[in-house]
Amino acid sequence: MALPLTRETVLEQIASLGYQPDRLAIRELKRLVELLEPLAGEPFIRMEFGVPNLPVPQVAVEAEVRAIRELDAQRIYPPFDGIPELKAECQRFVKNFMGLDVPLEVCMPTCGAMQGGFVSQYLGVRMHPGRDTVLFLNPGFPVNKMQARFFGLKSASIDFYDHRGAGLVQAVDERLARGDVGAVIWSSPNNPSWISLTQDELDGLAECGNRHDVLLIEDQAYFGMDLRTDVFQPGVPPYQPSVARRGKTWVLLLSGSKLFSFAGARVGLMVLSPELATRSFPNLLPFFGTERFLHAFIHGGIYCSTAGVSHSGQYALAALLKMANDGDRSFLENIREYCARAAWLKACFLRHGFQLVYDNDLGQPIADGFYFTVSHPGLTGPELQLELLRHGVSLITLGITGSCRTEGLRACVSFTDESRFPDMEHRLAALAAELDR
Amino acid sequence: MALPLTRETVLEQIASLGYQPDRLAIRELKRLVELLEPLAGEPFIRMEFGVPNLPVPQVAVEAEVRAIRELDAQRIYPPFDGIPELKAECQRFVKNFMGLDVPLEVCMPTCGAMQGGFVSQYLGVRMHPGRDTVLFLNPGFPVNKMQARFFGLKSASIDFYDHRGAGLVQAVDERLARGDVGAVIWSSPNNPSWISLTQDELDGLAECGNRHDVLLIEDQAYFGMDLRTDVFQPGVPPYQPSVARRGKTWVLLLSGSKLFSFAGARVGLMVLSPELATRSFPNLLPFFGTERFLHAFIHGGIYCSTAGVSHSGQYALAALLKMANDGDRSFLENIREYCARAAWLKACFLRHGFQLVYDNDLGQPIADGFYFTVSHPGLTGPELQLELLRHGVSLITLGITGSCRTEGLRACVSFTDESRFPDMEHRLAALAAELDR
Repeated sequence: MALPLTRETVLEQIASLGYQPDRLAIRELKRLVELLEPLAGEPFIRMEFGVPNLPVPQVAVEAEVRAIRELDAQRIYPPFDGIPELKAECQRFVKNFMGLDVPLEVCMPTCGAMQGGFVSQYLGVRMHPGRDTVLFLNPGFPVNKMQARFFGLKSASIDFYDHRGAGLVQAVDERLARGDVGAVIWSSPNNPSWISLTQDELDGLAECGNRHDVLLIEDQAYFGMDLRTDVFQPGVPPYQPSVARRGKTWVLLLSGSKLFSFAGARVGLMVLSPELATRSFPNLLPFFGTERFLHAFIHGGIYCSTAGVSHSGQYALAALLKMANDGDRSFLENIREYCARAAWLKACFLRHGFQLVYDNDLGQPIADGFYFTVSHPGLTGPELQLELLRHGVSLITLGITGSCRTEGLRACVSFTDESRFPDMEHRLAALAAELDR
Repeated sequence: MALPLTRETVLEQIASLGYQPDRLAIRELKRLVELLEPLAGEPFIRMEFGVPNLPVPQVAVEAEVRAIRELDAQRIYPPFDGIPELKAECQRFVKNFMGLDVPLEVCMPTCGAMQGGFVSQYLGVRMHPGRDTVLFLNPGFPVNKMQARFFGLKSASIDFYDHRGAGLVQAVDERLARGDVGAVIWSSPNNPSWISLTQDELDGLAECGNRHDVLLIEDQAYFGMDLRTDVFQPGVPPYQPSVARRGKTWVLLLSGSKLFSFAGARVGLMVLSPELATRSFPNLLPFFGTERFLHAFIHGGIYCSTAGVSHSGQYALAALLKMANDGDRSFLENIREYCARAAWLKACFLRHGFQLVYDNDLGQPIADGFYFTVSHPGLTGPELQLELLRHGVSLITLGITGSCRTEGLRACVSFTDESRFPDMEHRLAALAAELDR
């Protein structure tokens, strides 16, 4: 058998795995493609993963090997609030590229931004009694929603598709006024739509958080990767937009996975609002053994879930941040590579009859970057996903990201370099010919 | 000022840190000693930490460096259920040293045994509706109790001091019959008392779990470290006693931190009862998105809290397990060193008027190992802790381990080698002279 596969073949394999064809999770799609590739006899174009695929900068490799060989890092439990080197470089990083002054204590490693989102959501709903809901600004990272579900929390949603600018702020403010929301979480630059919230929007959200005393969880896993603005000149504006500028109730999540392709060690960062860090909340006491927010986060949250974060990995991330802080911009080559791929791949989809779903960013064209979103007239998201799978191209639906645009799919460019462009052209052309008939 | 410090000096420092003198946590004691040492002008004898302090075997160093340099492990997200090498060595390990046959799927890494205990307790109470209590067999690891508190769960306690053998099993059976307990958790070899449950006791607990369908969480962080029995001859009895032999509802937690002094990477292991792994529980669905226990554990628990476990660290732990599986017993030297220290240190405490608290193991003398427990006639645990601190020796109280013997303290031998023995002799003699007056 060759490409395209028949609809029946794909559906049979989905059924054999016990999956629901209209709600394939990323990991399910991965498993499905492993079964489909031998049937197709050709490797798929894998656009379902949101994972890095460019080399880890060598400074990270050398720092981690040194920590293991010379510093005996793997014998010793890491400090639960992070090694001093990493805390210091994190502090410099938010100063250099966000223009923020924060004390060392609020700069902490987490087991990936994942653990930061996990513990933060839970702390948010526990800050005040009677709050049991997390407000997701959608679309977003599907696993953040799984985290709320894990804790038995309710989810509320506001979509960027029809809420931007003052309308976004107003919608959030109205929702928070109901009093049941403990935390708001969003991703910007946004996974999956690649929109970026502006400083004005973030200032508005900051004030919503201040007004209703609700935790704002700003997921900056794709920090600085919207290259329309170069934020990576140390200490020089423009700075990365952030809710931290005007907010007093925020947690900032940073990741080494995308910016530095440093995903394997599971080391991310969390920076906490200094005002929030020292505040006391009586409702935290029964769950965390302390009323103080920062203490609850570290000792009640990070310590009691994993007893800290990979010791050697912290040295590696410290070296990566130091590189950026010292003005070495070579890591931006990785990000530029993603942008170049996105530009070509988006154009390829468009010339074969696809449309962009999230196609504008407050009136501007969407940036080129790690992700983009596509749809095709007349097809639902799961239908379009199936057609693309038949032709050897795998993407996830926007449905699983919480988007209201269920006709859409998310494409990630990290595994599709120039060498796959001819295949892509050919496969999309073949699909377009079928759909035109 | 020199040793001994005055009572007032120590209490002033405790007050300056805002701590409660009768309930000092391990991390608080650490901070306190950092303040006291300059006042004393001499380094303390640190027995408060339960952390390893012997070299990591070189195979782990080489395996991890190779994973970083040659296998590009730090770029790539680790598989959420573990790298194949680690799963295979874990499977061999439980076969070789426990005599257990389990499939690869139930062998999984966690971010330390800590994450295993965290996720397991929560899964236990979610298996069936209406269960909101974790039963702790005490004494035990203080942080496991913090984990139950984090989730807002209730804690129940049965103490090994007055419950061993058939009495232990009967007490657990009666408690489980009330229907509100979702999980039972214990540590054996036991932190802090260093008792070891027998296979008979564990068989009895296994049947309690089977009868009441309650999750049994067996924390084997100190696997094989009770050297009265040598379990480390691959494939040859005697085997490490375990609830897994007769149980159908167990989770086994293993740690590289103590056995291999591999604590920094935060890589532990979890092995799940094969019968339980494939069972479905409707009550899991709303929290984990699946009814199947194993799927809930990996994708609803490990994935959504940390997105897996240090990639390079998994290679290191796989190499350590392989070493043991291949019959290289050199790592036992570390454990023997702990035993030798314990023998001398226990005798030193005893000849200066102290008593052992947990002093017998079902009629046998307690083994020499990582921990032992002491008390002194006429003093409470916090009072004795204060007197020892005055003399430059730091231990935690048994009170914070959940023990009913609140007159006791826990001593860990890992930081006190032969070079400190003369100081120890001198300091305990000085304290004894004071207490005799």
